[in-house]
Amino acid sequence: MRDTALQHAYAVIMAGGSGTRFWPLSRRRRPKQLLTLLTKRTLLEEAVNRVRGLLPADRIYVYTNSLLRAACSRCLRGIPPSHIIAEPAARNTAPTIGLAAHEILRRDPDGIMVVLPADHVIRRVARFQRALRAGCSWVSVEGRSVTIGLKPDGPETGYGYIQKGRRAGKSGATVIFSVDRFTEKPPIETAREYVASGRYLWNGGMFIWRAATLLKNLERAKPEMARALARISAAGGVRATRTLRRIFPRLEKVSIDFAVMESISECYVIEADLGWSDVGSWAVVHDLAPKDSEGNTRPRSSLSLDSSGNMIVAPTKTVVTVGVKGLVIVDTKDALLVADLRRSQDIGKAVRELERLGRKDLL
Amino acid sequence: MRDTALQHAYAVIMAGGSGTRFWPLSRRRRPKQLLTLLTKRTLLEEAVNRVRGLLPADRIYVYTNSLLRAACSRCLRGIPPSHIIAEPAARNTAPTIGLAAHEILRRDPDGIMVVLPADHVIRRVARFQRALRAGCSWVSVEGRSVTIGLKPDGPETGYGYIQKGRRAGKSGATVIFSVDRFTEKPPIETAREYVASGRYLWNGGMFIWRAATLLKNLERAKPEMARALARISAAGGVRATRTLRRIFPRLEKVSIDFAVMESISECYVIEADLGWSDVGSWAVVHDLAPKDSEGNTRPRSSLSLDSSGNMIVAPTKTVVTVGVKGLVIVDTKDALLVADLRRSQDIGKAVRELERLGRKDLL
Repeated sequence: MRDTALQHAYAVIMAGGSGTRFWPLSRRRRPKQLLTLLTKRTLLEEAVNRVRGLLPADRIYVYTNSLLRAACSRCLRGIPPSHIIAEPAARNTAPTIGLAAHEILRRDPDGIMVVLPADHVIRRVARFQRALRAGCSWVSVEGRSVTIGLKPDGPETGYGYIQKGRRAGKSGATVIFSVDRFTEKPPIETAREYVASGRYLWNGGMFIWRAATLLKNLERAKPEMARALARISAAGGVRATRTLRRIFPRLEKVSIDFAVMESISECYVIEADLGWSDVGSWAVVHDLAPKDSEGNTRPRSSLSLDSSGNMIVAPTKTVVTVGVKGLVIVDTKDALLVADLRRSQDIGKAVRELERLGRKDLL
Repeated sequence: MRDTALQHAYAVIMAGGSGTRFWPLSRRRRPKQLLTLLTKRTLLEEAVNRVRGLLPADRIYVYTNSLLRAACSRCLRGIPPSHIIAEPAARNTAPTIGLAAHEILRRDPDGIMVVLPADHVIRRVARFQRALRAGCSWVSVEGRSVTIGLKPDGPETGYGYIQKGRRAGKSGATVIFSVDRFTEKPPIETAREYVASGRYLWNGGMFIWRAATLLKNLERAKPEMARALARISAAGGVRATRTLRRIFPRLEKVSIDFAVMESISECYVIEADLGWSDVGSWAVVHDLAPKDSEGNTRPRSSLSLDSSGNMIVAPTKTVVTVGVKGLVIVDTKDALLVADLRRSQDIGKAVRELERLGRKDLL
C-alpha cells in the first residue's frame, strides 16, 4: 500500500495561464507553462513530475484551455488523456478548482486536492514533496485547509503574502502554523516590513484541502458559482462537455484566493524554503540560469565579445554579441526581441502595442 | 556623336573586394558591394548606374572574382556578360587594373580608363559625373593621370590622403591641381593637421588615366608583373581563360596606389565634394540612413519602445526593442548580431573568431 498520508490525495495542476512577459518565446498557443526555460522540460512537465514522485498518474489532473490542450498532452505522455481537461474559457482559478473538486469527490468522497500552479520553478523537490505529504496528512486528520507559504528571499512586490499566526501543531516533523491573513501584493515599504518581521510568507498559490470542504466553502462564498458547477458536474456522458461549454464561460471570473481562502475561518500554513520562483520575467530566468564567466546566459553556439550580463535565447541561430551588457535577446522564427534586461517587465507593453497594430500573427 | 571628352573613356569598376564589417549581412559570397545598404540597389549596381549616365554599357567593365561573378551579373542586367570578369584569385588592385588596361588598349589605343570602386556611396551624382568628364577631358588633352580627391568632412584616420599641389589649370569649369603626394592612413593628430591645412583631400580610389600610360608606368614600377600581364593579354580564345588562371594567382599582391600612383612623376587631382563615403561600418550606414524621430534606422514592421539611436536590419522578421540605445542589430537566416554601434569596427574580430572556431558555414 502507498503512503497513508497520500492515500486520498489528488493533484490539480493549474495550466490554463496566459501571459506576455516571455514574448516572443511565449505566444497565445505557447504560454509560460509550455516553455522550457531552465531545464530541458517545460515548466508544466516539471510541475507534473514533482507530484509524480508522490502520486500515481491517475490521481493527477491538469486543467488547461482548449488552445493548449494538445500541447499539454504532448509533454505529459504518462497522464491519462481524460485527466488533461480543457476549459472552454478562462474564468480565473475559482471555477476551475470547483470543477476539479466535483471530479475528485465523484471518485473519492474523502478526496484531498493538492492545487498547484504549472508555471513556477521549485528547485528543492524533496522539501516540496515533504511539505505536500505533511499538508495532506494534516488535512486528512484535521479536516481544515493548508497552504504552502514560501520563505521570502526579499521584499518582492509582485507576490501576495500570508501572515503566519500561532503554531498549531506538527505533522510528522513539519510545523503547522495557523494563518492570520492573506494579503494582496504590497507596496515596497510594506513588503520590507513584512520580510523584516519574519512573520510573512509568499503566497505561491499552492493549497491543500478536502474536495468536500472546498465545495462547502465555495457554496457559502459564491453560491451562484457553486450551483452552476454542480449542474456541470451532474451532466454525464456527451452532455458533460456540452454543459461545460454552455455554463462555464459565464461563471464569475475570480481567483480562489479571493473567492474562498480569505474567507476561510481556519486555514493553516506550512512554511517552506523550496528554491521557489514564479519566474515572472526574463530577468528572473537570467538570475536562476547558469551563466558564463561574464554573466551571460547564452547558447553554446553563440559568441560573446566584451559582452556581459546578457540573457540570450536563440534555439536555431548563432548569436554574436559585441560590447553589449544587460540585454535580453530572444530570437524566434518570426520575431526578435532585444530589450534592456531591467525592462523585461515591460515586454507586455510591447505585446499590447503589437496587438493594437493588428499583428495577431505575432501574439 | 557622344560627348567628345568621353569618346575614349572606359569605366573599370573594381568589384572584387571582400570584408567582414557588415557581417552577418555580408558573407564571403555577398560582400559589401553586393549589399543593399542605403537604397534598394546594391552598391555595385549604384556604382555602375552612376557611370551609365556617362558611358554606354559596352564601355563599362566590372572586375570581380569567381565566387561573386554570378551575383554581380544578376544585379547588372544591362552590362554585356563578357564585361563582368572573374579573376581567379585576389591580388589587390594593381594586377586587376593592369589586366583591364590591356583589355581597353586592345579595343582602343587612345582608351582612357576610369577606375572606380564598387562599394562606395556617392550622393551627388551630377557633381561626380562632372568631375569624371572634366578628368577624362584633361587626360585626353594632357596625357597625364587624374585622381578625384574628396573634400574631407573630418579628420578620418581610415582613409589615405592626397596632398594638393599648385593649381595646374582648368578643364571646363573644373579646376585641376597637381598632386604633391599621396599619403597612407594617418594617425589622428596628423589627420587633424591635414584637414586644418585645407591642402589635403581623401583618396577615394578613383583614377583616370590613359590605358597606355598606366601600362607604361606599370612596366617601369613592376616590370615582372607587367610582363606577366602582357602574356595573359596575348593569349586569345580558350587559351585566354586558362592562361589567366595559371598566371594571375601568382602576381604580386599590391594596390595600384602603392605600385604606381605614388611613383607617377606628374599626377593631377580634381577636388570634389560628392557626398562620398566608403561606408566602412554599420555606424556609417546609420549616419547616412533615414531615421525615425528617436534616431533609429529600422524596418517599418519593427516596434521600438523607449529605444533610440539603433541601427536595425532584419529583412524577414519583426524586431521589437525595449529600452535599448545605440545598438546595431542585424538578423539573418542563420546568424544574429547584436553589437554596440560604436564597436561596429570590431565586428571583423568576431568573424575571425568564428573562423577560428571552424564556423565556415557562417562566413
